[in-house]
Amino acid sequence: MKSFTGAAVSPEQLDKIIRAGMAAPTAVNKQPWSFVIVTDKKKIDELAAGLPTARGIDKAGAVIIVCTEPNKAYLQSKDFAIIDASLASENILLATEAMGLGGHWTASYPYEDKMKHVRTVLGIPTGVIPLNVILVGVPTGEDKPKEKYQRIKSIGENGSQRNSIHFHNAKND
Amino acid sequence: MKSFTGAAVSPEQLDKIIRAGMAAPTAVNKQPWSFVIVTDKKKIDELAAGLPTARGIDKAGAVIIVCTEPNKAYLQSKDFAIIDASLASENILLATEAMGLGGHWTASYPYEDKMKHVRTVLGIPTGVIPLNVILVGVPTGEDKPKEKYQRIKSIGENGSQRNSIHFHNAKND
Repeated sequence: MKSFTGAAVSPEQLDKIIRAGMAAPTAVNKQPWSFVIVTDKKKIDELAAGLPTARGIDKAGAVIIVCTEPNKAYLQSKDFAIIDASLASENILLATEAMGLGGHWTASYPYEDKMKHVRTVLGIPTGVIPLNVILVGVPTGEDKPKEKYQRIKSIGENGSQRNSIHFHNAKND
Repeated sequence: MKSFTGAAVSPEQLDKIIRAGMAAPTAVNKQPWSFVIVTDKKKIDELAAGLPTARGIDKAGAVIIVCTEPNKAYLQSKDFAIIDASLASENILLATEAMGLGGHWTASYPYEDKMKHVRTVLGIPTGVIPLNVILVGVPTGEDKPKEKYQRIKSIGENGSQRNSIHFHNAKND
């Protein structure tokens, strides 16, 4: 989803979207995330200046930065911090869709330069990872869902053709 | 969701769940995931033997292992591989819920011992990361959703009290 009309997204819609994000599970329920919501067009432009691959950002009604803090995650693990924030982000994407809006993940992590830019523009402390910059907006209707279902693909380093879905059931074991 | 009745999950239900997983976005649409579905109780018991924290696994109708392959991810990045598989996993959890089933993520990654065990039991090649072991089953109804919404919490290394949601809009900038 990259084609937005430029229309605004309301505070009520954004509140619902963030609630969906917070509803995702986190390792041992540590909730290491936080969320930055930007609706100010000038601020969005500032962000865009350091995010050349964030296509469509100029027409987004809002952007949401899902942040995560290894210090607050289970075992102070950066791995869990990233996974936890990823699940929250997927909930955010699905919530936008369910509300007739569009959401598009553009990368910040793992790029040091992009994370630094996002931190600087938004005043995000060191130690807090801005995982992504999610564009939220009113869809033009141009974007169509991709078909990604596949039963067969190569898996493993030898690249041999195998099922991308493996079944272990009593019959074939 | 950890309390399952022990009832089976049908192949049709599992197919729908995996389709939901595959519908999640992946960085530059690389789809580095694959999925292992286990319904054979003996195999599930073998898995359980090396996963002491996977509570409820004995009553799961199936387990799904979401795997991911850095070699197949965008920029051969392990970071993107993990994030991509995390988004697919969240879709799987939400699909189980939407179908009246329950899903529960138990960890494999980032624990070397657990990943090794899962690889050995299921014949997963080196180079393929078994991210998790998702328990899928028929819920007993004991588990209630957690309330996780929070407007205020401390963020950043100094631990100062700040909003867990930050707004940047034209008014407060």
